[in-house]
Amino acid sequence: MFGPMFGTPEVTAATDRTAWLQAMLDFEAALAAAQASAGVFPAEAAREIVRHCRAELFDADSIARRAASSATPVIALVRDLTELVGPSAAAHVHRGATSQDVVDTAAMLVVRRALETVVADLHEVARQCERLAREHRGTVMIARSLLQQALPTTFGCRCATWLTAVREATAALERVRRERLAVQFGGAAGTLASLGADGPKVLGLLAGELGLAEPVVPWHTDRTRVGELAGALGTAAGVLGKIALDVKLHAQTEVGELAEGAPGGSSAMPHKRNPVDAVLVSAATERVPGLVSSLLSAMPQEYERAAGAWQAEWEPLTELLGLIGSAASRTRHLLSDLRVDADRMAANLELTRGLVMAESAAAALTPSLGRNDAQDLVGRLCRQSVERGTTLRDELLDDPRVRGVLSRDDVLGATDPSAYLGSATAFVDRALAEQEEC
Amino acid sequence: MFGPMFGTPEVTAATDRTAWLQAMLDFEAALAAAQASAGVFPAEAAREIVRHCRAELFDADSIARRAASSATPVIALVRDLTELVGPSAAAHVHRGATSQDVVDTAAMLVVRRALETVVADLHEVARQCERLAREHRGTVMIARSLLQQALPTTFGCRCATWLTAVREATAALERVRRERLAVQFGGAAGTLASLGADGPKVLGLLAGELGLAEPVVPWHTDRTRVGELAGALGTAAGVLGKIALDVKLHAQTEVGELAEGAPGGSSAMPHKRNPVDAVLVSAATERVPGLVSSLLSAMPQEYERAAGAWQAEWEPLTELLGLIGSAASRTRHLLSDLRVDADRMAANLELTRGLVMAESAAAALTPSLGRNDAQDLVGRLCRQSVERGTTLRDELLDDPRVRGVLSRDDVLGATDPSAYLGSATAFVDRALAEQEEC
Amino acid sequence: MFGPMFGTPEVTAATDRTAWLQAMLDFEAALAAAQASAGVFPAEAAREIVRHCRAELFDADSIARRAASSATPVIALVRDLTELVGPSAAAHVHRGATSQDVVDTAAMLVVRRALETVVADLHEVARQCERLAREHRGTVMIARSLLQQALPTTFGCRCATWLTAVREATAALERVRRERLAVQFGGAAGTLASLGADGPKVLGLLAGELGLAEPVVPWHTDRTRVGELAGALGTAAGVLGKIALDVKLHAQTEVGELAEGAPGGSSAMPHKRNPVDAVLVSAATERVPGLVSSLLSAMPQEYERAAGAWQAEWEPLTELLGLIGSAASRTRHLLSDLRVDADRMAANLELTRGLVMAESAAAALTPSLGRNDAQDLVGRLCRQSVERGTTLRDELLDDPRVRGVLSRDDVLGATDPSAYLGSATAFVDRALAEQEEC
Amino acid sequence: MFGPMFGTPEVTAATDRTAWLQAMLDFEAALAAAQASAGVFPAEAAREIVRHCRAELFDADSIARRAASSATPVIALVRDLTELVGPSAAAHVHRGATSQDVVDTAAMLVVRRALETVVADLHEVARQCERLAREHRGTVMIARSLLQQALPTTFGCRCATWLTAVREATAALERVRRERLAVQFGGAAGTLASLGADGPKVLGLLAGELGLAEPVVPWHTDRTRVGELAGALGTAAGVLGKIALDVKLHAQTEVGELAEGAPGGSSAMPHKRNPVDAVLVSAATERVPGLVSSLLSAMPQEYERAAGAWQAEWEPLTELLGLIGSAASRTRHLLSDLRVDADRMAANLELTRGLVMAESAAAALTPSLGRNDAQDLVGRLCRQSVERGTTLRDELLDDPRVRGVLSRDDVLGATDPSAYLGSATAFVDRALAEQEEC
Repeated sequence: MFGPMFGTPEVTAATDRTAWLQAMLDFEAALAAAQASAGVFPAEAAREIVRHCRAELFDADSIARRAASSATPVIALVRDLTELVGPSAAAHVHRGATSQDVVDTAAMLVVRRALETVVADLHEVARQCERLAREHRGTVMIARSLLQQALPTTFGCRCATWLTAVREATAALERVRRERLAVQFGGAAGTLASLGADGPKVLGLLAGELGLAEPVVPWHTDRTRVGELAGALGTAAGVLGKIALDVKLHAQTEVGELAEGAPGGSSAMPHKRNPVDAVLVSAATERVPGLVSSLLSAMPQEYERAAGAWQAEWEPLTELLGLIGSAASRTRHLLSDLRVDADRMAANLELTRGLVMAESAAAALTPSLGRNDAQDLVGRLCRQSVERGTTLRDELLDDPRVRGVLSRDDVLGATDPSAYLGSATAFVDRALAEQEEC
Repeated sequence: MFGPMFGTPEVTAATDRTAWLQAMLDFEAALAAAQASAGVFPAEAAREIVRHCRAELFDADSIARRAASSATPVIALVRDLTELVGPSAAAHVHRGATSQDVVDTAAMLVVRRALETVVADLHEVARQCERLAREHRGTVMIARSLLQQALPTTFGCRCATWLTAVREATAALERVRRERLAVQFGGAAGTLASLGADGPKVLGLLAGELGLAEPVVPWHTDRTRVGELAGALGTAAGVLGKIALDVKLHAQTEVGELAEGAPGGSSAMPHKRNPVDAVLVSAATERVPGLVSSLLSAMPQEYERAAGAWQAEWEPLTELLGLIGSAASRTRHLLSDLRVDADRMAANLELTRGLVMAESAAAALTPSLGRNDAQDLVGRLCRQSVERGTTLRDELLDDPRVRGVLSRDDVLGATDPSAYLGSATAFVDRALAEQEEC
Repeated sequence: MFGPMFGTPEVTAATDRTAWLQAMLDFEAALAAAQASAGVFPAEAAREIVRHCRAELFDADSIARRAASSATPVIALVRDLTELVGPSAAAHVHRGATSQDVVDTAAMLVVRRALETVVADLHEVARQCERLAREHRGTVMIARSLLQQALPTTFGCRCATWLTAVREATAALERVRRERLAVQFGGAAGTLASLGADGPKVLGLLAGELGLAEPVVPWHTDRTRVGELAGALGTAAGVLGKIALDVKLHAQTEVGELAEGAPGGSSAMPHKRNPVDAVLVSAATERVPGLVSSLLSAMPQEYERAAGAWQAEWEPLTELLGLIGSAASRTRHLLSDLRVDADRMAANLELTRGLVMAESAAAALTPSLGRNDAQDLVGRLCRQSVERGTTLRDELLDDPRVRGVLSRDDVLGATDPSAYLGSATAFVDRALAEQEEC
Repeated sequence: MFGPMFGTPEVTAATDRTAWLQAMLDFEAALAAAQASAGVFPAEAAREIVRHCRAELFDADSIARRAASSATPVIALVRDLTELVGPSAAAHVHRGATSQDVVDTAAMLVVRRALETVVADLHEVARQCERLAREHRGTVMIARSLLQQALPTTFGCRCATWLTAVREATAALERVRRERLAVQFGGAAGTLASLGADGPKVLGLLAGELGLAEPVVPWHTDRTRVGELAGALGTAAGVLGKIALDVKLHAQTEVGELAEGAPGGSSAMPHKRNPVDAVLVSAATERVPGLVSSLLSAMPQEYERAAGAWQAEWEPLTELLGLIGSAASRTRHLLSDLRVDADRMAANLELTRGLVMAESAAAALTPSLGRNDAQDLVGRLCRQSVERGTTLRDELLDDPRVRGVLSRDDVLGATDPSAYLGSATAFVDRALAEQEEC
């Protein structure tokens, strides 16, 4: 009932039952091709096997069902494939391989395909952050710390933070994709015993066939790849979750600075602008840390093949890819149609009637009064403005000590949020420059 | 591809898309009936609504797909239901309810149905533990601590531990099922505003219709129910995981004390007795703590309706039920056909050539020699037996100091594992008595 | 550096090194007393042991340091205790017990002591919620869903939700404390072999000495108690985290409905009212789910004594108690001095210029116009009010169709938030009644 | 009570209260130096500040205690530092910085220092794996899958897997250390407003002073660094946990292939060889995934400064460093003194009386009989050998069909585990070659 809220057609197609089935068949096909290249068996037999390694020739339901009695789908798959191919090829199906070779390699292929769409979406998220940072480089907004208004910044500066985070998290994912997706091939004991001395040669050819890295040794119970992937996915989820959290907060009725382009509505509550995309990104990404912890918990695996921990990886890994794929896609959608209300940002800067400019005012007074006196004076004027319901600006303009050292224009400048942005736009420019470099 | 390994037909039927759809419709039907009873609208309209609240009248795929644009499946569901019923009933569909009322109540119904099969399986697991405890009350086996042989116990004593753990974890789940599955009904703001003063009356009737508890107040953002359920499911998973871990360890080739009735095999490795059920129980239960942590992390929910954390509950909760249902069912199957090799247990007791009886031997010598001397002497004889490749019994029988205080029969008794079982069988009896009481 | 932010003096005293040391000594003392009662050894020896079981007689640092070489602090502790007591009692120290008996029982004693302060604080939290619910039973406030303003409710109604959640989570913790804190006593193999047939008798006496429950069988590798405790602590943390989240959101500069009595400030930012207690409660409770998952992951333990999973419980359990103790204490403090700004609540109700009353207005028109027409009309007037910058009330008063069926007073009533509270106060009363019952 | 079991003196010194205090002071000192270099204030004032930034001049307990009222230790620290320095420097202490600048930068410094010892230990773990792989390159051992004996391999091949995993996990940690430890400096709003246009210049100088990377923008609420570090630490823990798991399993009384050099003992159970180091490594690493998930859950942080999630990082991060430091150090110790019992490995290869050589035997018969017939025949002989209690070798030598195609020497060869190692030693050589390269 909830699938489409936590997936996208693309990432689902990359990770569903058919995708796994085809990925397992891709392993069997590539293995046959590699062994034929290595001269282990005739090319004709390999061609016969390759020809039949197409998911549509198999009954995925039946394979999945039969998997339960051996704790692996591979036995049923190999049986069905063996029956499909002609008798001369039958003996060469799955030669020298073990179940885990098939499933681990398939997992890498599924990950690779899913990451294609995930990374593409993340790049588009970065581009949207870039666009927003550029467009709102100087859109003044209050920065908030501990959910309290703090000092002015620009909305572009926030987008620059998003952009930097997305770029770095994406780079980490891309590194895993580039360096750590390796073929698995070790046979029952990780020794490729049935291939005699041909093991490493076939291993290398197999990696080449599939376009995956060739591992130094079989990694049946070395799960660093899975751990690193989980860490990178977890980090990406955290970054997307941060963007969604900000959007939800800015979209609050009382804040009103951001809105989704197509918010969810309610006939009975016509004012509602439910930030639906942000809500679903949050919901998806909040589930990620638990799944990452499951994958990390499963890393210690017994001897040469695990009795449970390996099998525990399959669904959480698939789920992680789906959740992050969905979150990336929705964030892209959300940002591409984000409504930024600069007027409301400006209005919100006035909510404290200038108290957020106290630091700026004190800084303006410091050269004349010294730091301590300047801060004390501004503190007093702040309290006064709260009591009287005036603005800090009014109090500064009224105060004789202030008037003695600052002109009216000085006071207006010192209480103008857009004049107290420090390096906000410089930081935007740094983030944009980094993004352009890549 | 992996579903049937981590589910059972029963628990899948209780938690799949159709089950959720029907549960949501059950809410709408019961709400109509309750409101008719309360006189909010005519009974005829209610009957019309109830008549159409059958899952087979709806397109679940379509509802799921449309859910993505509003972050809830309820808007689409209510639209479809409203179209199905005649015009006079249409205005009464979903009266006064909010999306979360439907989904939360449906979740409780799904949980209730899933727990029926889970709890039934857990009871059967307990009965199998009971049977094994009874049958092997006196089957002597080495106890192991830190994976090292320790002292003798009986296999029945272990089964008594399993039994007690299963009973207690099941009782906790049953308590949640009995006391904590409540209807949700509060309307958009948790005030049932559109019902005027009828809110509590309709709430009570609705709870009665569904056979769920009536909450004190709406619990839209009070997730104690979910937290308690997660805790109880997590505990049950831990208990099943413990049994599976023991079975896998006892089934090791080098231990060989237990085997599954239908182990997984391998044509190339005819000696293998893969403990397939135990492996899948481990794989399922190892995934549970991460999911529990996701549900607990989602407990803090904003104001009157959460913006992400609530939505994050749906799939993990469904998944938890499936994993524990699958683990319970497989454990039941595993235990009902468990092969206990009492001869191998006896043989393993001899692996240390009697060193595991050192404490017993020292105890036998203590009355005559004092505790310290007895322990020193036995320690020396143990080292001697290791060096010489003899048994501790031989060394005791040969030693003049021992012969001075113990007869040959005394020595045989002190080195007989079955004579050093302490309260092992008494503990079995206590566990059996508890089980009979319920 | 961070300890005092995540602990309180009370809970720290209940769980620190000295508390653990004393709890282990309490076990040794009670064991001696129980065995003397059972006639296993002379009462004089027991008295000698009991006399020395005081933490201040031991060097905790040294014991902790020596623990590392045997993976348990008990060997060093027993050695030191044995040296302290006179020679006649030395042989009776720790008789029949194993390390895990000492540490598990000590854990239960530490938990009991920590829960005393935790539960007391939770009861006080409940009382504060009760007070606030009562005082603000009719304080009208906007309810918010998905962080968007929804419909009116009362602040008391929110407090009633908090109250109910706290009560239920506390009840779950109290049940664990009452029923599930059991003595551990099984000896090396869980058979109490060295006690001959006296095992159950001594076990019962020992439980009585310590005021802990007597388990059916030793629970060395049955960790249901730990799982249930973890679940209950996790649920309590979720409830406290919910309250803190609400406080932080209500305390936002832009919302301003709640403030802590002693918020954190900033000299440079005089307007800041950092909700320090709420922030620390959030920080503490967000760490809980990960720790709960660690304890649940550790439940499957090998054979009769775990090789790692048991040892993995000690620090997370201690940490959980500290975090929840700290969160409960801070929440109590926070609520006891919470500033509720009813004026700001009233002002915020006007932020949408009456759009939040659309459902109410439509309901008022429905008897005359029918549901669909009423909703359509109100929808149109809402859009109009947004375009024109008027209030919904103005538009209703101006509209001829409305005027045809509703009087001015009717319109004023239908747009008065305090007249559209449904069962809000009834729910408050239900929650207060429940609380009074206990 | 448990600290020394889950820490080492080195990693504790790098992460304890004093280490954090000094790291925060290092930030303040470097900030003063950087600002003096940038000409923001006189070098003399900077020198005065730097001179006082030594932990021993501060009361850490007092700072920690006062931290609780503002949810940060920095306010108290800055106050104490300001009092320590002369009046001319006082105004320049902490100029332009916010609390989070101090704590985040300090965290990076603490991480850097802790990783020094962790990475050094991991390199030594790798060297021990390398040594063992080299020494036991040809030590024949049974490989086990699903805890069942499978086919022969060598112990060196296992060590090669350990080696590769450790190297890769260490490389990931080193990359984080090299590239991702960055200074934090943004001021209250992340704009460095009080520095006017000098922000980026001071930021660069500050990074240089501390030897940390200069971030593109302040990363107050961009926690990718923390996420990546957590992922890398989690992966390293998984690898160490795998080694410990293998050691514990090989050290089982019934397996007896490995033993720690200094196992834990028991006076009453003289045969016990408790693998204490492995147990504590398991206990430490099993706690890691929960902590990683806490850090990942804390990644979404509000606006420009988080209200809880950031504060939730401090203790879990410190704890993670301690646990992994402790696990790395213990694994190093464990491996440096590991006892490998090659005789027991050889003996265990015979436990199935040759059944583990069935694949090898079938392979030897395949050229003559064809694959199917060869497998059928071997299958039959295996069953026969089990029934008769003979070895597979005996059955092969006795069987007329076998004798017709294989000589006695052929049969001896086909049933010799050391002749069926496939690429085991080639894999060892590949892993050793990789290790030598770095």
